[in-house]
Amino acid sequence: MVKPVVEKIDNVEAMPLEGGGDIRWLITHRNGALNFSMRYITVPGGKSTPAHRHDYEHEIFILDGEGEAELDGSVSPVSKDSFIFIPGGAFHTIRAKTDMKLICVVPVEVARMFLDNR
Amino acid sequence: MVKPVVEKIDNVEAMPLEGGGDIRWLITHRNGALNFSMRYITVPGGKSTPAHRHDYEHEIFILDGEGEAELDGSVSPVSKDSFIFIPGGAFHTIRAKTDMKLICVVPVEVARMFLDNR
Repeated sequence: MVKPVVEKIDNVEAMPLEGGGDIRWLITHRNGALNFSMRYITVPGGKSTPAHRHDYEHEIFILDGEGEAELDGSVSPVSKDSFIFIPGGAFHTIRAKTDMKLICVVPVEVARMFLDNR
Repeated sequence: MVKPVVEKIDNVEAMPLEGGGDIRWLITHRNGALNFSMRYITVPGGKSTPAHRHDYEHEIFILDGEGEAELDGSVSPVSKDSFIFIPGGAFHTIRAKTDMKLICVVPVEVARMFLDNR
């Protein structure tokens, strides 16, 4: 039977993220998640998240910091309490002006792809 | 074609939540989300999230405040930067000691069920 998890982010390994930030995979298939995976990402001021597109979606919540999101050529300011939906296929990057922290949720297949092929 | 969304939580309707908090459905099928739905929940100190079980999972991130999570009879303290995985079928409630804010992600079918049957 799959067990609940209650944990703090500091107890999860931070891995380098292309663009200069880092990523913690908080909840994945390894915990028994069947559908989606929650990640915690930090991006230092002046750095950015990967600038790319892929066929799966992101749902993002900005925890702290200020920056801008470029989504399919449109640039919008983002800060604490902004949320972002990036549908599959949309080009995206978030550029941090100050140190940023955010939550980014993806389909659980993405966790399998990244973590089981390291 | 599904468009990206960049928005602030204040621009989303807050609906009352059983137990004394409120809930904003930030990203749902109405935005074109195919797999999961992100909600923002506030729970005033002394109140709690619904105490129940259901067949779908939750992935929760605590944004602010202090409280305790009861998960299948086990009680754990939670606060800012705690995350919680609640697998389908697990009994769960979060009791707020101080005013709490949290993100809670569910399968998108749950958004359809709640929002399209109001």
